[in-house]
Amino acid sequence: MALAVRVSVAAPENGVHAGEDALASLAELVREDLRACNRVIVQNMQSQVELIPQLAAHLVAAGGKRLRPILTLACARLCGYPGPEGGARHIALAACVEFIHTATLLHDDVVDESRLRRGLATANAIFGNKASVLVGDFLFSRSFQLMTEDGSLAVLRLLSNAAATIAEGEVLQLVTQNDLSTRDERYLNVIQGKTAALFAAACQIGAVVAGRSEAEEQALSDFGLYIGTAFQLVDDALDYAADQAELGKTVGDDFREGKITGPVLVAYNAGSEPDRAFWRRTIERSEQTDDDLDRALVLMEQTGAIVDTLARAKDFAERAKAALSVFPESRVKQCLCDVADYTVRRAR
Amino acid sequence: MALAVRVSVAAPENGVHAGEDALASLAELVREDLRACNRVIVQNMQSQVELIPQLAAHLVAAGGKRLRPILTLACARLCGYPGPEGGARHIALAACVEFIHTATLLHDDVVDESRLRRGLATANAIFGNKASVLVGDFLFSRSFQLMTEDGSLAVLRLLSNAAATIAEGEVLQLVTQNDLSTRDERYLNVIQGKTAALFAAACQIGAVVAGRSEAEEQALSDFGLYIGTAFQLVDDALDYAADQAELGKTVGDDFREGKITGPVLVAYNAGSEPDRAFWRRTIERSEQTDDDLDRALVLMEQTGAIVDTLARAKDFAERAKAALSVFPESRVKQCLCDVADYTVRRAR
Repeated sequence: MALAVRVSVAAPENGVHAGEDALASLAELVREDLRACNRVIVQNMQSQVELIPQLAAHLVAAGGKRLRPILTLACARLCGYPGPEGGARHIALAACVEFIHTATLLHDDVVDESRLRRGLATANAIFGNKASVLVGDFLFSRSFQLMTEDGSLAVLRLLSNAAATIAEGEVLQLVTQNDLSTRDERYLNVIQGKTAALFAAACQIGAVVAGRSEAEEQALSDFGLYIGTAFQLVDDALDYAADQAELGKTVGDDFREGKITGPVLVAYNAGSEPDRAFWRRTIERSEQTDDDLDRALVLMEQTGAIVDTLARAKDFAERAKAALSVFPESRVKQCLCDVADYTVRRAR
Repeated sequence: MALAVRVSVAAPENGVHAGEDALASLAELVREDLRACNRVIVQNMQSQVELIPQLAAHLVAAGGKRLRPILTLACARLCGYPGPEGGARHIALAACVEFIHTATLLHDDVVDESRLRRGLATANAIFGNKASVLVGDFLFSRSFQLMTEDGSLAVLRLLSNAAATIAEGEVLQLVTQNDLSTRDERYLNVIQGKTAALFAAACQIGAVVAGRSEAEEQALSDFGLYIGTAFQLVDDALDYAADQAELGKTVGDDFREGKITGPVLVAYNAGSEPDRAFWRRTIERSEQTDDDLDRALVLMEQTGAIVDTLARAKDFAERAKAALSVFPESRVKQCLCDVADYTVRRAR
């Protein structure tokens, strides 16, 4: 069995809501909007083709955190939307963001041949790869239908750009697979593409619907990009460190797939020659025995790969918080900062 | 080896350009626009992630007929676009149509586990399923980026609706697989979803860019829907009738996959009890031996399944031509009518 290394990260200094409750606090702040968003999501999963709502309901039941739509709703609030005259554009657009995310999850799980996500069987494990590919396409299309109803070309530009960037990031990840000579810059391109680009768009939409300045749009885009980057760095660290039950996914997935992530690059580049030979065999040539994951976890600890990766994530979380400096202090701003800390604090 | 049944269909009565040259004549009419469209396609396949243009170039090299973008360009011409002041919107939008088509082809070939398309190895056979799923996502996103640049919400609505309908049609096809109790109406829903919806949108765009009346938009949408339906009916017939080399795909693919198509429904519903038992074993229970395809082809001939399906396709082609009656006679209208005949004439 895999050795479950538990990593502790220093608690962030500021904010009573920091830590695991940060996301719950932010969700609570936008509670009514989030409920409305969930209704839009459920309504738009419907189709006369019964398998579509069935498969989509499985994903909803799997209990996503709704992190991305919550960010859209909260960033709209931060920007003063909806104003005194009301408005509900942020709600449908938050649903668009979640649909794009869900579509990429469905395709990811097919591409990664994953069997578990959030502790439950993946859609492809239950419904098959074919249905997952096609329902992903449906949700993706539905997202663009909703955006078109909203009618903002600025939002359409943001999210179609994000969608293309996500696909590029995913293809780049595929290309770097098993390649230990991958430069760190490329790894950052992968995670900013496949993960952080959608966070950036999700946050920026808040400023767009509120009609705020370009500087504020940019600030929210930066905020999203940085917390998305931190989020993925932590995810990549957890794949070599987390307790499987707690994380709701299988430890060592990335290792078995020969995925090139931050921790692997640190451990490989800092390793002794025999260690580097180990990584070349297991990651580059995909020759793995049952004991190899345990050895990988030990090498991660010896080289400080996990601690390094988490420190890097913390740095991005700090940059995220700094990006919000253009906005005056408020409860929602504090909660957004706490969520930035939360992305790193997940790694307890 | 499979018995190659050759089916003859009566030549259409009207038009010197009818037959196999019809599409070439239409392409010739919009030659300069089509060249420009091909340039837009090649430009927008580019990405810093090298695998994307590599895989996309494979599809271009596989020599698609560009039927859908040609229809967009020709329908724009029929509607008087570009007018005296010029305009190039139809060119980029024709490229969008082709990108959506290409994305669905890539995902289809993954879903169907196809190895051959147009006589060449499929992208998934060469680059793997993962790359095909992700590059499909990229082209789909790129299409929406291009539409957003164009800036017409009407077009965005048309093509996002079409994309959702395509996905629904594909899922419905998956659901009906192996199910001989599928009603004919559902089969029509499948082919109108997976194939005809994009033809309809491709044609309607011509009227949208030219700012023509709703009646004219509807006429072109109907024209596209009907020729798309005819096209798919013929495709489904050819899978049990064509010479493999001529068609550039493997005869009997649908049979081996247990796909429920028009010919199968006709042969099953018109068959004797032993014949129906044959279909239940081969299609419903997927128990097939080497000789079964030959027997399937014989049963198709005995029940007139192929001739029936082609007659039905011819009927849709006639309805397509009738839909164009709102437009005055012109060379481009004649060529469009010839292409309607061509969709059926492919089955010689």
